[in-house]
Amino acid sequence: MKLVIAVVQDKDSNRLANALVKEGFRATKLASTGGFLKAGNTTFMIGIEDECIPEVMKTIKANCQVRDQLVTPVSPMGGTTDSYIPFPVEVQVGGAAVFVLPVERFEHF
Amino acid sequence: MKLVIAVVQDKDSNRLANALVKEGFRATKLASTGGFLKAGNTTFMIGIEDECIPEVMKTIKANCQVRDQLVTPVSPMGGTTDSYIPFPVEVQVGGAAVFVLPVERFEHF
Amino acid sequence: MKLVIAVVQDKDSNRLANALVKEGFRATKLASTGGFLKAGNTTFMIGIEDECIPEVMKTIKANCQVRDQLVTPVSPMGGTTDSYIPFPVEVQVGGAAVFVLPVERFEHF
Ligand code: NI
Ligand code: NI
Ligand code: NI
Repeated sequence: MKLVIAVVQDKDSNRLANALVKEGFRATKLASTGGFLKAGNTTFMIGIEDECIPEVMKTIKANCQVRDQLVTPVSPMGGTTDSYIPFPVEVQVGGAAVFVLPVERFEHF
Repeated sequence: MKLVIAVVQDKDSNRLANALVKEGFRATKLASTGGFLKAGNTTFMIGIEDECIPEVMKTIKANCQVRDQLVTPVSPMGGTTDSYIPFPVEVQVGGAAVFVLPVERFEHF
Repeated sequence: MKLVIAVVQDKDSNRLANALVKEGFRATKLASTGGFLKAGNTTFMIGIEDECIPEVMKTIKANCQVRDQLVTPVSPMGGTTDSYIPFPVEVQVGGAAVFVLPVERFEHF
């Protein structure tokens, strides 16, 4: 038995939760802020058997991997100027920090 | 030293917190959602000496065990009909997922 | 690799977060209540290499140590009486409960 603690960006949180449910894993979400990742984040706790580690890792990676995303910034002044032409820029989103902790005992009441 | 992480239903949370205080255990509650249990839940972190594990387990089990509860459902349409007679049904409530983690070092500043 | 879980008082939380960032440590904050400490608290999760444990411990101790603070209580009746002269009293603030957990595997996606 292991306890997987995964810190992921908020924007990947729902997709990861759905993917874990679909794979039959039970996860608890903790409200969290700051730290491992630059944006708002969510911490997942997932209790699993040792042999499921590769599948959980694969699921987290598939849903949270760092990738570039095109974002169109708003006008820097918030107004309209003839000289300002917004164009999309690439920003890095996603990412996950995943800790696998040993569990000495697990009980289910 | 161990760190006990217990995910319990919100409805059992206050009772468990009071029972732990009464037994002299110190617990920290984390806001959590979804996952191990079907309803809203709370995650307890309890730092204890190894020899206290049985007592903590007993306290969690006594306050959070899965049990059936009678619930009277409201009218399915939310209105009043002559043909609808509500009667109590049994639903399962409670339950706890409890992880005991090894602690390599504990400091109290 | 270790996962440090530190429960500290809310009033020390921002200062500790800033100190950890300054030292180059990545911490995730979890909203938490009650328990190890008497006042509102925050739980930090900090993933670090083994050799950084002393520096992290020093940082937590420096920013969260229990200390006495002078507090001037308000009138016990909330009104004004000629006979009541408020004077500062010492109360204990701060403190941290710090758990160092072994990490079997760490991944960064
Ligand atoms: Ni169950
Ligand atoms: Ni103390
Ligand atoms: Ni990174």
